[in-house]
Amino acid sequence: MTSTRATLIQVAERAGVSLASTSRALHGVGASKAMVERVRAAAEELGYSADAIGRSLRMKKTFQVAFAVADIGNPVYVEMMRAIHEVLAPHGYRVVVMSTGDTSDSTIELVRSLGSGFVDGMIVSPLRTDDGLITEIQQAPVPVVVIGRAMDDRGISSVSTDSAGGIGEAVRHLHAIGRRRIGFLNGPVDTTPGASRQRGFDAAVNAGDLTAERIERETAEDFTVGAGLEAARRILARGPEGAPRLDALVAANDLLAIGAIRAVRELGLSVPEDVAVTGMDDTEIGRVFQPSLTSVSLGSTERGRAAARLMLQLADDPDQPAQQVSVGAELVVRESTTTATERGER
Amino acid sequence: MTSTRATLIQVAERAGVSLASTSRALHGVGASKAMVERVRAAAEELGYSADAIGRSLRMKKTFQVAFAVADIGNPVYVEMMRAIHEVLAPHGYRVVVMSTGDTSDSTIELVRSLGSGFVDGMIVSPLRTDDGLITEIQQAPVPVVVIGRAMDDRGISSVSTDSAGGIGEAVRHLHAIGRRRIGFLNGPVDTTPGASRQRGFDAAVNAGDLTAERIERETAEDFTVGAGLEAARRILARGPEGAPRLDALVAANDLLAIGAIRAVRELGLSVPEDVAVTGMDDTEIGRVFQPSLTSVSLGSTERGRAAARLMLQLADDPDQPAQQVSVGAELVVRESTTTATERGER
Repeated sequence: MTSTRATLIQVAERAGVSLASTSRALHGVGASKAMVERVRAAAEELGYSADAIGRSLRMKKTFQVAFAVADIGNPVYVEMMRAIHEVLAPHGYRVVVMSTGDTSDSTIELVRSLGSGFVDGMIVSPLRTDDGLITEIQQAPVPVVVIGRAMDDRGISSVSTDSAGGIGEAVRHLHAIGRRRIGFLNGPVDTTPGASRQRGFDAAVNAGDLTAERIERETAEDFTVGAGLEAARRILARGPEGAPRLDALVAANDLLAIGAIRAVRELGLSVPEDVAVTGMDDTEIGRVFQPSLTSVSLGSTERGRAAARLMLQLADDPDQPAQQVSVGAELVVRESTTTATERGER
Repeated sequence: MTSTRATLIQVAERAGVSLASTSRALHGVGASKAMVERVRAAAEELGYSADAIGRSLRMKKTFQVAFAVADIGNPVYVEMMRAIHEVLAPHGYRVVVMSTGDTSDSTIELVRSLGSGFVDGMIVSPLRTDDGLITEIQQAPVPVVVIGRAMDDRGISSVSTDSAGGIGEAVRHLHAIGRRRIGFLNGPVDTTPGASRQRGFDAAVNAGDLTAERIERETAEDFTVGAGLEAARRILARGPEGAPRLDALVAANDLLAIGAIRAVRELGLSVPEDVAVTGMDDTEIGRVFQPSLTSVSLGSTERGRAAARLMLQLADDPDQPAQQVSVGAELVVRESTTTATERGER
């Protein structure tokens, strides 16, 4: 907590009951006499102010928090959702998952709908973040925490990661294992993740220490397996007749990487012997895939937890200053970039 | 529609606007003058009754529908969710996804919470369905549609499928390709899906036309990849020293099947040559997995669509009689049960 003032969370912890029970007890509704006494005693001990009680009374709590993402089918969001649930559930909050849609406009509509008061706050991971959306979030009727771009200068609490640096790690790893013809399979570059990953790839291949024979870039229609398969077919077919084939693909997430592996196999080639493939997000499906995926972890569980903790603080005191949390990227090397020979050499 | 009376949906269709706009226009709030006139004209043409308008006015519409499932990480629910969204979105509804938790009690708590009025209805796929939950659904403050057990005799609209018959198809397929030592990897048998799949397996192996050398059954802790891996390790290790190994595994869903394939490979064996594996739900991850999964499709998209259509009707008229929809099961044969030799023979 950044504030020295006692918060509802601290009262709940002191009383040893859930946040929902604490709120009900302070409201004096839906709580047993014993519970009311216990919570009031904890509030008094901590000097939890009457002001704060009044503020809590004015806010009609729903004890629901929305988690809004572009694609519920992407396992990275499932991992974030589980982490958010783990942090919020002990405080009596239920998580409802919503779709932002693909556009900034549909996300803006979602933020506006929060005014109907069905949730106490929203954690959102927008696919596209423009000024209109940022303004809307700044004016949102309930607290909003963004997972994505850092929002330091916009007065919005956010959790960001270093996906650009992570793509760089993937490129350097492929270079280190001897790959010199590297293709980049990105999602749409007008999205927040697409833009930062593009930046990371460009920075890595333009760095002085990289000696590449051939660099290719291709954009998938979205961040899914199907789009990855199609984009990988295109990038693998490119180049003049008889020219040496790409020997590595850096995919902007695990779903694109799985699509890419299928495209490599369609050509009768194998992963990683002919083409090494890296993903990003370090998802469960990538870990169980065959070959298991070398992937850049962006700390989805840590990011979910951090966002949920920021939300708890804001739900308790919406007026507290915005906070920024940053989670690092880390490459996890697995079978999709490790040939049998390389495994032997280790 | 089963009713001959004009419904809000029909008014919306006639007016050529969304259900949300229609409702707002009939309420006379948040709609342009032109929109109000257009919708009222459509209502008049169709004889949409003043009674119905009154009922619609009394119900404070949120234009949100909850979809509640036990495991948001299971891709079968993602496919259902997409189908539900596709049907409901054109009518102005937003889908919010919620977790039922694992128990009947946690699902009951969720049904009760609907009273706070944050959604107009709920589509729920309960993992465990006891009488307490059924009673709660019958008394729910908003319309509820169940995806799971058929609810013919309980006055609850439901969408069911034939998972028992589907497991039977998987067993007969493995028998037809010459497998005689068949193991069944189920999830918990005290769950709705676990119970019906167990029934299907038992019926298939007890049918007179099946000549098996060995039948084994094993229960995973839940319906996930990790639990499938552990349960498959146990079932593959079973039996007396030197006895011939199982040559086929029937898994109760695709996630368990993926776990099972990993367990087979840990023993240095291959799928399908040494052990053929079938899944259930025909999910995208099963289709892109290597080897691609032979799986029993239970029509997740069709079930989602059917449930959404039932919900639209109930949202329009909560008093209409409960309806039952049943979707068939179909085996989709892929690489995980087709050896190279068999592929050649086709």
